[in-house]
Amino acid sequence: MIAESDGMAQRRAIAKAITLLESTRADHRAQADELLTALLPRTGNSFRLGISGVPGVGKSTFIETLGLLLIGKGHRVAVLTIDPSSTVSGGSILGDKTRMERLSVHERAYIRPSPSSGTLGGVAEKTREAMLVCEAAGYDIVIVETVGVGQSETAVAGMTDMFVLMQLPNAGDDLQAIKKGVMELADLVVINKADIDKDAATRAQAQITSALRLFGHQGNPEHAHAVHDVHSGAEVRFWLPRVLQLSALAGTGVDAFWDAVMQFRQLQTANGKLARRRERQATAWMWERIDAGLKQAFRQHAQVRELLPQLTQQVAEGSLPASTAARQLLAAAAITARP
Amino acid sequence: MIAESDGMAQRRAIAKAITLLESTRADHRAQADELLTALLPRTGNSFRLGISGVPGVGKSTFIETLGLLLIGKGHRVAVLTIDPSSTVSGGSILGDKTRMERLSVHERAYIRPSPSSGTLGGVAEKTREAMLVCEAAGYDIVIVETVGVGQSETAVAGMTDMFVLMQLPNAGDDLQAIKKGVMELADLVVINKADIDKDAATRAQAQITSALRLFGHQGNPEHAHAVHDVHSGAEVRFWLPRVLQLSALAGTGVDAFWDAVMQFRQLQTANGKLARRRERQATAWMWERIDAGLKQAFRQHAQVRELLPQLTQQVAEGSLPASTAARQLLAAAAITARP
Repeated sequence: MIAESDGMAQRRAIAKAITLLESTRADHRAQADELLTALLPRTGNSFRLGISGVPGVGKSTFIETLGLLLIGKGHRVAVLTIDPSSTVSGGSILGDKTRMERLSVHERAYIRPSPSSGTLGGVAEKTREAMLVCEAAGYDIVIVETVGVGQSETAVAGMTDMFVLMQLPNAGDDLQAIKKGVMELADLVVINKADIDKDAATRAQAQITSALRLFGHQGNPEHAHAVHDVHSGAEVRFWLPRVLQLSALAGTGVDAFWDAVMQFRQLQTANGKLARRRERQATAWMWERIDAGLKQAFRQHAQVRELLPQLTQQVAEGSLPASTAARQLLAAAAITARP
Repeated sequence: MIAESDGMAQRRAIAKAITLLESTRADHRAQADELLTALLPRTGNSFRLGISGVPGVGKSTFIETLGLLLIGKGHRVAVLTIDPSSTVSGGSILGDKTRMERLSVHERAYIRPSPSSGTLGGVAEKTREAMLVCEAAGYDIVIVETVGVGQSETAVAGMTDMFVLMQLPNAGDDLQAIKKGVMELADLVVINKADIDKDAATRAQAQITSALRLFGHQGNPEHAHAVHDVHSGAEVRFWLPRVLQLSALAGTGVDAFWDAVMQFRQLQTANGKLARRRERQATAWMWERIDAGLKQAFRQHAQVRELLPQLTQQVAEGSLPASTAARQLLAAAAITARP
């Protein structure tokens, strides 16, 4: 029998903590809040990297290659997943396959699949909390991945320091990303499988670069924008989104990718944008949870449950003004707001 | 002294009703709800046309030309405005100028400027209600216009049967519209001032048409998509967004614009999409007002007001988990939701 390593024991402890956080029992939730508050002083020291891409773009292969590279550099890597398909169907695009076989057995890596039920907001909350647990446990790189369906990209971009969009060397893909507003979230776009069709990858790179420019990112050859601070006169540089080609399977371009991530981290730390991004994310998260809680309590209110079907019907068929129905339902829930 | 016409008396009555709807006094609000409920059976018979465009695109000139054309065809035309700038600054991009001089004095027209204060949600609510008053008063075309700043386009598209985006014959403009997701809302795009630079207008028309196609609208030469109903086998046609050139000042292209609007109306009435759009709009409006009411009541709660500044600070600086703060605040407001 092989002696259990420290790594394995720690991963079990993390898994147990995350399971507690994911529990819906009220007493567990109270314990979870205590645990989180206790862990909080030890969190925040990792770099939080979000990665999104459509199914088949090669996220798992890329994350495994990247994770092993980072472990080789002395990092400890946690990989968390948000799978929006599980919130709708109970099934999962990502969850069932055996993925990242080499990374998952490494003692300096921790991989956690997506919480398997609840709303996207609920799944995102559990993932944010799992991220804090991983940070407190000493993982200094946390990767949060999601498939590019639904609104999960916004959730991932809203909980990470840097958001990376993975694309195939295939025109059209990028237009979908533009349409859904995902391109605007991207700090970095990587074109994977660039070795399969170099010409297509280069066309896609040019196309996406030009789309990023047109959408207000004014680039310069160094992909960083220098301005002078109005107070000190010192030069301040800002990150500008860029597009890289790589092949996760062949392992080419992954080093250059990580160099770009580290340049982003240095720049945004120096200019203060990383700290402000985390502040904004934390308060936005608080309000998102408040909104969800308010709406849930409202829908569970006995009088609302009684009135809602009928009033909704009347509003839909045009026999009751929507604003009047809203006021009647709010009054039924004993909620009155000054206008 | 000129005898007051019926038109003038009626417009005064409408103005009085809308003023009541816009009042923030609780007793007025109760009266307003009664009024709306009483009017509702007489509403819904107009065609609701949303028009959006950046300042300077020529909305007023266009609406005046169109309004006079429609009056000439026997219609009665109401024009309502949502000005998002007034909700932020109290000032107004649209409100102060003397606009639509010929249309505003016509007895078969009614023009109402934007409600001048409140959140965008509140302004949109007042405008929706004003629309119902105008419909009950017999205006069979209601035009709701907004400037293309802020989220007001979404509000206007969410209360009208057809949403028209006005553009200048100027590349780049459309990319902003794509970026902000406004292009996807558009049922029709018009390029105004096409007479000033015909070449630029034609380029813009081709560019926007191709953008609309790439974004999933598969066009055919008739700009309408024919499918066969799975049950009856009958041909059902759907509207496909199109791009028209016109000159509001010269009056050219405005007839063709109205023909397109009427084709849209016939098609979407026949295939049932117009009715479903109104149903969706009404229930979405109800939920929007409920959300706004819940959040407002929450923020006004004494315990929340006391705790919020400190907890927000702790969340922003990372000393309190956002989800814990949310739960504490919800508990303080005596709101508990089952997880």
